[in-house]
Amino acid sequence: MSAEGNGATGWLARVYVTPKQGVLDPQGKAVQQSLHALGYPEVLDLRLGKYVEVTLAEISRESAETRVREMCERLLANGVIEDFRFDLEASR
Amino acid sequence: MSAEGNGATGWLARVYVTPKQGVLDPQGKAVQQSLHALGYPEVLDLRLGKYVEVTLAEISRESAETRVREMCERLLANGVIEDFRFDLEASR
Repeated sequence: MSAEGNGATGWLARVYVTPKQGVLDPQGKAVQQSLHALGYPEVLDLRLGKYVEVTLAEISRESAETRVREMCERLLANGVIEDFRFDLEASR
Repeated sequence: MSAEGNGATGWLARVYVTPKQGVLDPQGKAVQQSLHALGYPEVLDLRLGKYVEVTLAEISRESAETRVREMCERLLANGVIEDFRFDLEASR
């Protein structure tokens, strides 16, 4: 009965791309230093990533998961230096 | 009793910065077109934002909320064209 069942529905995919642990994040370090300079010494670490909202047409949840994972691997994230995760929310 | 109480604890702030509704997002459009070219016509819209993980020293939850909101307003987000939201997770 739920919009999250196997029936076709539109989806909002929220994708989070972050630098892998151990990979240098010079942009994040620059932002961290700027925050220190602005008076926020409590910032111990800062990692800068991407946040992508993808609106998908009506397909099954299985297709949506498979397709979004593929999009991340092929384009949205660089697997050598970045990790990604995503969640799916039924829309409409 | 919880680590989320009023006592001092370290925090992980997850900040999401997105283009405001109605603001052009040419980078997002470029990524959307690339996905179409790669064979994902089901992508109806795509908005590109930033995802920032900020590790904070041991301060109260109230301070952490106030300080992270300030950081967003002053540096992490551009209030003219971007919205932000964040959540806080107790760490250590």
